Amino acid sequence: MRGRVLLVHGGGGEETHELIHKLFLRHLNNPVLSELGDSALLSLPSTRVAYTTDAFTVSPVFFRGGDLGKLAVAGTTNDLACAGAEPLYLTLSFVIEEGFELEKLERIVVSIAEELKKNGALLAAGDTKVVPRGQADGLYLGASGIGRVVYEGLSPKKLKPGDALVVTGTVGDHGACILAEREGLEIELESDCRSLWPMLKKVYEAGFTLRAVRDATRGGLAGVLHEWARASRKDLVVYEEELPVKEAVRGLCELLGFEPYHLANEGMAVIAVAPEEAEKLVELLRSTPEGRHATIVGKVEEGEGRVLLENAYGVKRLMEPPAGELLPRIC
Amino acid sequence: MRGRVLLVHGGGGEETHELIHKLFLRHLNNPVLSELGDSALLSLPSTRVAYTTDAFTVSPVFFRGGDLGKLAVAGTTNDLACAGAEPLYLTLSFVIEEGFELEKLERIVVSIAEELKKNGALLAAGDTKVVPRGQADGLYLGASGIGRVVYEGLSPKKLKPGDALVVTGTVGDHGACILAEREGLEIELESDCRSLWPMLKKVYEAGFTLRAVRDATRGGLAGVLHEWARASRKDLVVYEEELPVKEAVRGLCELLGFEPYHLANEGMAVIAVAPEEAEKLVELLRSTPEGRHATIVGKVEEGEGRVLLENAYGVKRLMEPPAGELLPRIC
Repeated sequence: MRGRVLLVHGGGGEETHELIHKLFLRHLNNPVLSELGDSALLSLPSTRVAYTTDAFTVSPVFFRGGDLGKLAVAGTTNDLACAGAEPLYLTLSFVIEEGFELEKLERIVVSIAEELKKNGALLAAGDTKVVPRGQADGLYLGASGIGRVVYEGLSPKKLKPGDALVVTGTVGDHGACILAEREGLEIELESDCRSLWPMLKKVYEAGFTLRAVRDATRGGLAGVLHEWARASRKDLVVYEEELPVKEAVRGLCELLGFEPYHLANEGMAVIAVAPEEAEKLVELLRSTPEGRHATIVGKVEEGEGRVLLENAYGVKRLMEPPAGELLPRIC
Repeated sequence: MRGRVLLVHGGGGEETHELIHKLFLRHLNNPVLSELGDSALLSLPSTRVAYTTDAFTVSPVFFRGGDLGKLAVAGTTNDLACAGAEPLYLTLSFVIEEGFELEKLERIVVSIAEELKKNGALLAAGDTKVVPRGQADGLYLGASGIGRVVYEGLSPKKLKPGDALVVTGTVGDHGACILAEREGLEIELESDCRSLWPMLKKVYEAGFTLRAVRDATRGGLAGVLHEWARASRKDLVVYEEELPVKEAVRGLCELLGFEPYHLANEGMAVIAVAPEEAEKLVELLRSTPEGRHATIVGKVEEGEGRVLLENAYGVKRLMEPPAGELLPRIC
């Protein structure tokens, strides 16, 4: 579709109808989504479900390695997957700035369709609002998702002394990429924006004794670990030298004075696993395309809810929690 | 809470944590919502569910008869209720403009809590993003909801010649109210923003032979009827003199050149019912506080998908579908 989004496209009249049919349904139609905007009627495979929501406001809307549409689907399905659930259905609400190019909107809708497919999930309902020029900075997406629980009992409260902490990929990629794009830096950096369900499905099926799984997004690895330390009232020790960080991410962090573990990921999970199974878990993760940089990066200890960084000499210091306006509109 | 929302409140760090605990969880906490932002794990009472989403961008955020929070909950639960489902769980994502007053945000959160209670529904998950000053015009809400289907088979495709068309309340109240607020007109007008589940629950339990139920929001009564006419390929005839319209709404429409049936409602449903049950249905509706202006306003005829207005002399003319930028950001 050519042209630009107009206020009339959000009015609920004939123009809205046309936008829905010619753009949204063209790429996203499926048996449960007869018409965007209505309730979908679904027969779920189970009564035990995970249910999540996120708003996505990333700037810029298109970035190396993804766009707002891919991010919204990956971010929502990752929340479900990390709760032990198979993503089944998503909803999306579009808040579009008047004047946004229809061609860009279509690229985003195509990304959404592709990413849903990777998860085997369907769009169940949608909504479109158009706001006057100057608002919404192009496009915001509101997403929600329902998944079928396939692995029960994940909770950071279950962390036990000795448990291993595993990251499934390199740390801080998405945040570093967005930072570089905004600063106009010519660095070869790509967001890790991707869906984790294909990888986590294998992990759940293998029957590991998992305590907790969480994707590190806003707040980064530090955000996840501080939340877990607080919930479990255990100390979490991170082996500083073991953290997998891409050269370009490390370089950017040194340049701008950030720590990689404070930067967001959008396709990396942190997993707490029984110690005797940690090596096998890493082996499985590394056999998948999403998990080829999987590494054991720390352990759980008796303690008081602190997160500690341990260097090569065994010296420990506190890992700062994420705070301040690290990077608004990172996701 | 005093003060204003800052960019740091959306950073995913300590400040986000504080906002969630001191403001959101204070009013919205419940057993399934352990921490906003995570997936909720739910055991649904049934595998047969309705699932919906909407974005809410109404301007102004506070209006006579409601606010953005009440509107988001009522709008979402009304979508479920009109699909024949009992609202169970909602999610909400907040996109807040930097500088928005925390006191206003709290008033909205209190409205959300109150409206959820009227539906017997719980907030299952939430998310907060803060965008820089000048964007989001205060606050946008993205909502989704899941409900348990209690009345199966509602569809405008089921409309049969002879069926009666019933409205559960006066036409155009929300749109007229927002219009008056924006024009600064001193008219005694209140939005009909309210949850329909308490009323529709009684309708479903009474076992009427219902064909279709839909709440008239964006696009108004005309929007619903045109969609039904298109889906059923029947003609829908509306008795012009029977349309219940408040005096103030009629006056405003004459002043500004609108038709009440093009203006949004936010607490009025259109119901197609078997003709022999129409009077009984209206009687039941009128016994509820939400339905005291319920009226039979039309009927279904064989035809070609038109919506016709019939005046007191039996003369018919086409009812214009809603089109153009009637009123952006009405909901």
